[in-house]
Amino acid sequence: MRTIKVKTASASYSVFVGDGFVNKVSALVRPLVAKTRGRIFVLTSPEIWALWGERFTGSFPEQAKPEVLFLPAGERFKRLAEVERLAAELSAAGADRSSLLLAFGGGIVGDVGGFLAAIYMRGIDYVQLPTTLLSQVDSSVGGKTGVNLTTGKNLIGSFHHPRAVYADIDVLNTLPDRELRAGLMESVKAGIIRDARLFSYMEKNAARILARDAEALEYVIATSVRMKAEVVGIDERESGLRMVLNLGHTVGHAIEAVTKYRVLLHGEAVGWGMLAALQIARGRETVTDAQAERIERVIKAYGPLPGFRATAEALAEATARDKKNRAGTRRFVLPVGIGASTVVDDVSEAELLAAIEQMLGRR
Amino acid sequence: MRTIKVKTASASYSVFVGDGFVNKVSALVRPLVAKTRGRIFVLTSPEIWALWGERFTGSFPEQAKPEVLFLPAGERFKRLAEVERLAAELSAAGADRSSLLLAFGGGIVGDVGGFLAAIYMRGIDYVQLPTTLLSQVDSSVGGKTGVNLTTGKNLIGSFHHPRAVYADIDVLNTLPDRELRAGLMESVKAGIIRDARLFSYMEKNAARILARDAEALEYVIATSVRMKAEVVGIDERESGLRMVLNLGHTVGHAIEAVTKYRVLLHGEAVGWGMLAALQIARGRETVTDAQAERIERVIKAYGPLPGFRATAEALAEATARDKKNRAGTRRFVLPVGIGASTVVDDVSEAELLAAIEQMLGRR
Ligand SMILES: NC(=O)c1ccc[n+]([C@@H]2O[C@H](COP(=O)([O-])OP(=O)(O)OC[C@H]3O[C@@H](n4cnc5c(N)ncnc54)[C@H](O)[C@@H]3O)[C@@H](O)[C@H]2O)c1
Ligand SMILES: NC(=O)c1ccc[n+]([C@@H]2O[C@H](COP(=O)([O-])OP(=O)(O)OC[C@H]3O[C@@H](n4cnc5c(N)ncnc54)[C@H](O)[C@@H]3O)[C@@H](O)[C@H]2O)c1
Ligand SMILES: [Zn+2]
Ligand SMILES: [Zn+2]
Repeated sequence: MRTIKVKTASASYSVFVGDGFVNKVSALVRPLVAKTRGRIFVLTSPEIWALWGERFTGSFPEQAKPEVLFLPAGERFKRLAEVERLAAELSAAGADRSSLLLAFGGGIVGDVGGFLAAIYMRGIDYVQLPTTLLSQVDSSVGGKTGVNLTTGKNLIGSFHHPRAVYADIDVLNTLPDRELRAGLMESVKAGIIRDARLFSYMEKNAARILARDAEALEYVIATSVRMKAEVVGIDERESGLRMVLNLGHTVGHAIEAVTKYRVLLHGEAVGWGMLAALQIARGRETVTDAQAERIERVIKAYGPLPGFRATAEALAEATARDKKNRAGTRRFVLPVGIGASTVVDDVSEAELLAAIEQMLGRR
Repeated sequence: MRTIKVKTASASYSVFVGDGFVNKVSALVRPLVAKTRGRIFVLTSPEIWALWGERFTGSFPEQAKPEVLFLPAGERFKRLAEVERLAAELSAAGADRSSLLLAFGGGIVGDVGGFLAAIYMRGIDYVQLPTTLLSQVDSSVGGKTGVNLTTGKNLIGSFHHPRAVYADIDVLNTLPDRELRAGLMESVKAGIIRDARLFSYMEKNAARILARDAEALEYVIATSVRMKAEVVGIDERESGLRMVLNLGHTVGHAIEAVTKYRVLLHGEAVGWGMLAALQIARGRETVTDAQAERIERVIKAYGPLPGFRATAEALAEATARDKKNRAGTRRFVLPVGIGASTVVDDVSEAELLAAIEQMLGRR
């Protein structure tokens, strides 16, 4: 087991990366609730519960099983209407300010569960138990919670940190291969922007990692989390440094929007987006050709990145609607060599279009 | 004009109590937004806008009028569905993290507007421009924002402080008399729990205050705000002292729930609730009979408290469902003499029923 401490202006908690957590949830979370009256609720999805529910509840005594709430799988349920339904269920079941919510699922369950905890009775405690690679290395850490509007993703939300995060590698055994690979793209990103050692490790050990070797996964997950924890510790609210976490996301989000979130997984879109950012970086010489080739090779090692249909113009246009882009200007995170990065605000339309064209040429 | 500073662990801002603010909103809020790109949005209700909209927008230059969003009047619109609609409107109009929201209305507009600001893009700045007595003395200060569930009031929300509060006494001129009186009940409460001078002032100047004498209103509003600001400064999250603000609210909320929020205004229900609390205080001798009579006289001076139909049993039962009551126990704020108060956790069923019966006898 590896432990990473997250320390921000508003919260301080630990992320535990290891195995067997799902078999002892009760012991792990009991200390977090008030002795006599703190009730425990679980938010999960039916699919995940079918696979892991029995093990999950096994550690709780018969007379104190947690109450289970369900969110159907799929991005289209990451909406305020579901949050309201879940809040009404909490309320009907008697949840109060001393209750604890466990979010047991991927990034969607985590984002919705965290937001539910953020706004139920103006905030109750919650614990993240992420079950996808993506949620273990990325979404469960950093306190961003929220839901989508029809006009855009994650436009509604709160910063609300969990009391603790338990990333159980065992649970990844049932994760589809494509989800694993897509999630690993955020770890590749972590290496590129801030951790040359992680990058090299992922470069050398792709086969072991993709074969889900427990030791390799534990290292990759814990190291990715440590990178994010550091960044979030310095800049909790994304007023500066935290923006580097968006490498690949400007164009990645545009691809997701243009393909209506139906063609690619988030990590896959980010993979493409990193290839686009890489072209700009190459043009500006923040990476050498050799570095760019190495980065591209590693991104592809964790692919395949499935193809998609979109014109460069449509994608360029969609980057303007990204909420990270302040009025008019086009902001990009660019790798600086390997293991460092920078944020630029002045990417021109022509530069952007050329980079997207080059990326599209790689489909 | 009087200025009250609010300083909590998470925020620091001023409440301005005076007149003429509505005529110069542009000048007041411009310094709060980024020069070139900070856009300004207003949330209000159609009724208030019909009365004050022209004056409100008058101070903005023609090419930079704020965008106006509407929330229909009425507690039934204080819901997540409205928040979602408003967020979608903000997003469609291009609101981003640098935008500023002005909440111009009573407590409902303030609670919904504050919550919208709390969760739109994980939080944007907002300013409260409260237009009811209640919102000026109470709801615009302290950072509580939120909406209702069908299972209970204010069960969904956030702590999100405004950048500033402008309480304009002029705007109260169009407020119905009954709304004025109901709002003043929160000022009576402020006096009882923590400010003997305010209490005496309200005792001696009821006629002037109810005639809306500007100087008297300014004093009462500013003094009530100062009391609340002090309490919130010490205990932002209601883990202790802030509970005293709930004098009259245990039974008050029960009356509102049992009469389905259709019979009494909130302040009127709180007036009744303070009479109930007073009976318990009398029984426990935290107030003398003479003090209790004085308090009762002042509450009634700001009445009439309209009657309502409910049995003592139904009301007692409803107090158990209040979210302020932790599992099982019955919590009450009691006056201690005049100008001080205490929170007790051990009010028995019999004591509660007797107090409610005595209160009902005063209908
Ligand atoms: N809050 C943040 O900081 C942040 C960061 C990145 C992404 N996100 C959000 O995360 C979401 C994506 O998360 P995700 O990639 O985990 O997707 P997801 O939650 O949709 O999970 C992917 C799929 O895998 C299934 N699944 C989950 N765990 C499983 C397991 N152990 N075994 C078998 N199946 C399993 C799920 O039911 C789902 O069908 C997006 O909504 C994105 O916006 C949030
Ligand atoms: N956030 C808090 O700390 C807090 C504290 C107390 C109450 N509240 C909330 O405040 C709400 C009640 O607020 P309220 O009493 O202001 O009610 P309200 O917002 O419903 O306003 C009362 C009525 O007066 C009208 N009105 C408002 N200003 C007017 C004006 N200047 N002239 C003419 N008409 C005007 C409104 O349209 C409405 O019909 C409740 O939802 C309550 O839960 C919140
Ligand atoms: Zn991502
Ligand atoms: Zn009140």
